Amino acid sequence: MTTSPPGKPPRQERAASTALLTDKYELTMLAAALRDGTAHRRCSFEVFARRLPDGRRYGITAGTGRFVEALQAFRFDDAELGMLDSFLEPATLEYLAGYRFAGDIDGYPEGELYFPGSPVLSVHGTFAECVVLETMVLSIFNYDAAVASAAARMVSVAAGRPLIEMGSRRAHEQAAVAAARAAYLAGFAGSSNLEAERRHGVPALGTSAHAFTLLHTAGAGTTPSDWEKAAFGAQVDALGADTTLLVDTYDITAGVANAVEVAGPRLGAVRIDSGDLGVLARQVREQLDALGATGTKIVVSGDLDEFAIAALRAEPVDLYGVGTSVVTGSGAPTAGMVYKLVEVDGIPVEKRSSHKESHGGRKRAVRWAKASGTIVEEVVHPADRPAPDVPADLAARPLTVPLVRDGKPVADLGLHSARARVRDGLLSLPWDGLKLSRGDAAIRTRIIAPTPGRS
Amino acid sequence: MTTSPPGKPPRQERAASTALLTDKYELTMLAAALRDGTAHRRCSFEVFARRLPDGRRYGITAGTGRFVEALQAFRFDDAELGMLDSFLEPATLEYLAGYRFAGDIDGYPEGELYFPGSPVLSVHGTFAECVVLETMVLSIFNYDAAVASAAARMVSVAAGRPLIEMGSRRAHEQAAVAAARAAYLAGFAGSSNLEAERRHGVPALGTSAHAFTLLHTAGAGTTPSDWEKAAFGAQVDALGADTTLLVDTYDITAGVANAVEVAGPRLGAVRIDSGDLGVLARQVREQLDALGATGTKIVVSGDLDEFAIAALRAEPVDLYGVGTSVVTGSGAPTAGMVYKLVEVDGIPVEKRSSHKESHGGRKRAVRWAKASGTIVEEVVHPADRPAPDVPADLAARPLTVPLVRDGKPVADLGLHSARARVRDGLLSLPWDGLKLSRGDAAIRTRIIAPTPGRS
Repeated sequence: MTTSPPGKPPRQERAASTALLTDKYELTMLAAALRDGTAHRRCSFEVFARRLPDGRRYGITAGTGRFVEALQAFRFDDAELGMLDSFLEPATLEYLAGYRFAGDIDGYPEGELYFPGSPVLSVHGTFAECVVLETMVLSIFNYDAAVASAAARMVSVAAGRPLIEMGSRRAHEQAAVAAARAAYLAGFAGSSNLEAERRHGVPALGTSAHAFTLLHTAGAGTTPSDWEKAAFGAQVDALGADTTLLVDTYDITAGVANAVEVAGPRLGAVRIDSGDLGVLARQVREQLDALGATGTKIVVSGDLDEFAIAALRAEPVDLYGVGTSVVTGSGAPTAGMVYKLVEVDGIPVEKRSSHKESHGGRKRAVRWAKASGTIVEEVVHPADRPAPDVPADLAARPLTVPLVRDGKPVADLGLHSARARVRDGLLSLPWDGLKLSRGDAAIRTRIIAPTPGRS
Repeated sequence: MTTSPPGKPPRQERAASTALLTDKYELTMLAAALRDGTAHRRCSFEVFARRLPDGRRYGITAGTGRFVEALQAFRFDDAELGMLDSFLEPATLEYLAGYRFAGDIDGYPEGELYFPGSPVLSVHGTFAECVVLETMVLSIFNYDAAVASAAARMVSVAAGRPLIEMGSRRAHEQAAVAAARAAYLAGFAGSSNLEAERRHGVPALGTSAHAFTLLHTAGAGTTPSDWEKAAFGAQVDALGADTTLLVDTYDITAGVANAVEVAGPRLGAVRIDSGDLGVLARQVREQLDALGATGTKIVVSGDLDEFAIAALRAEPVDLYGVGTSVVTGSGAPTAGMVYKLVEVDGIPVEKRSSHKESHGGRKRAVRWAKASGTIVEEVVHPADRPAPDVPADLAARPLTVPLVRDGKPVADLGLHSARARVRDGLLSLPWDGLKLSRGDAAIRTRIIAPTPGRS
């Protein structure tokens, strides 16, 4: 039904350009570098976190898949160029018009643990093709890793009980979609967000809110119990008895009784969204069992974070709904990663004026572990030298893999593999690394300096 | 160049649908309500914050303009419906296919102050047309208000010195665009984000990063000072002497000397991004003045928040660059607003089982102020009754205005008016309300209950 200019794919089949998700200074630097000829120097930029968020013991690499996808849509078309010509000269605009990232990218596979200094992404190409990606790279990794890292702590303390991400309403509407993906990657069972199901295949879950019960308010002579039963009846009629009924709109004890009365003892679950969730879960469990609804599950929600989840460990809770805390990184809403130029034409470079040092040179990383699988050290070494020898009682696993070659994705970027990596990563942490309390990184990162005098 | 099916506008001229930025339960509730006929009841939903973020004294309403725009793109086309048919019955899909919000929306104008319980948005229509908007409404308001509220505190303590938002890299890539808008709305001078300029007209600002200096690293026999001068020269050549040179890559004192040597005493500004910014700003000011660069400005950046900005008040700083703290709401990454059903067919409704109470009934609000303009109280009253009488020494200003009528935007949603409102709002706060320290809301909100026995 659509025709297009020759040689140009129809616009609706192309993703919206991501090229302006960029800080202006990247393009002014590009302009200056094109003028003085340095734009074409071979460079390596590295993404890493100088430290973990305060007191955290590990981080989860996340955003890799979204970044590689966004990279393919990083194109300056007429719409983008039209707003840049006020401050860029024609030579720069011409360069941007033909821009396609054609370099190589290495990095940690998505879902892999990271620690301070871990080179989670290394971007190699000309200065021009690498510098313009800074903001987009960091936006994606900083948000996705913040969510996945918080989510992994929740998954870890939930000790096998499933978690549902339901925090879309507490995050920017597009961040919410990425948050659902990052939480799922970290081991959540699914999310309330429909766009995350469409875009990323994250299972969408959810049933009903207080508004639905309140909607069934009726006039004089009727009681809240009547309204609640009407609402429950309508929900069971539409979704079946296997649904989850929200029982805390008026009175929880009456709500549970009404739920079982309406749905029968095969009711799927009840949800409690307020009050002391531990006390209520015990009461509701007893009440459900007494009513014969022994298979009916208990879902709890309402300001849960990893600490609240841990506190409910001994209670008869079957499923946690987690909102605000997971989509905002539970106190650490950004992973604090940076994108630093580390090598120019083979010469390691680094900023030197302050504590904010970076370590020069293109790098790779391996992780050392005991025979039991427990990890003990992260070793980051110059990419042009082999990894150091491993002590006899340890094994080394390479962490750096090719993600993009000549601009084309070459890695498995599926969420299922990433989920498996998070699972394995949590199992590999030393006991101390799993503690919720504030502490140091679970393992030490050793960064081996580039060969002296190489330049 | 494009043809389209008759009656359907070409897809590329339409904004991407926002309809799946939605929690699944909104659609399952809709399905149940369509089955039992309650979907067509007239409802009012209200957006409000039960409390301000911990210790905050005011909030800034933000997101209104983005929400009204997103509302126009809330459409279920084949692409959206195709992924819903696994769990929705045909009648629900048919309803969604024809969905256009045709109700009314009232609310606080964007940029207006808000306090706990302020009805910042009221959505009126059938249950069906209102319930599906919940997640999108809240995502937009919760994020934008979090950023604008933090930004306003920074603007307030900067006491007239301009601020630039440069935190895109610390937020989800689309949230970054909204953050730039929200910071600008709150009084920032502009943002580093180019997409925010294109999409919202936020002035894009910025010049150079450490990578550009490091790019000019050369081989044996050259020094960091040579590299830095080469970089500065290239930047001045491309952008003119009025540019901002980043002077802290190697050594700040040498960097300032190099900057003035290369650009001359008419250099626009120098930026310091590390170290003790207060001490360095004084040293650099003295050095610049001694070099004759008395008009050269000093830009500081690096982990600034409202407290750090306040601490620099006495220093010779001309401009602040603010990143992480503003885009993450400076400790409060979500405004915590909720979307609650408050009225059904004229009957006020509210949840009653816990402290999480909402106040039933459709509402309007006025704010009382002294003759000096200082505000003293927020009065929220039932929409069907006039605002209460104002004491003789006070004046009342209505806060609730029509935003949408019959689905169509009817208000001025421009950012310039919103900026003026923030400015006026900050001026209207009592002295205590401007304190950075943790405290109570600057003024009391009085919520007048609906007329008893109205239903």
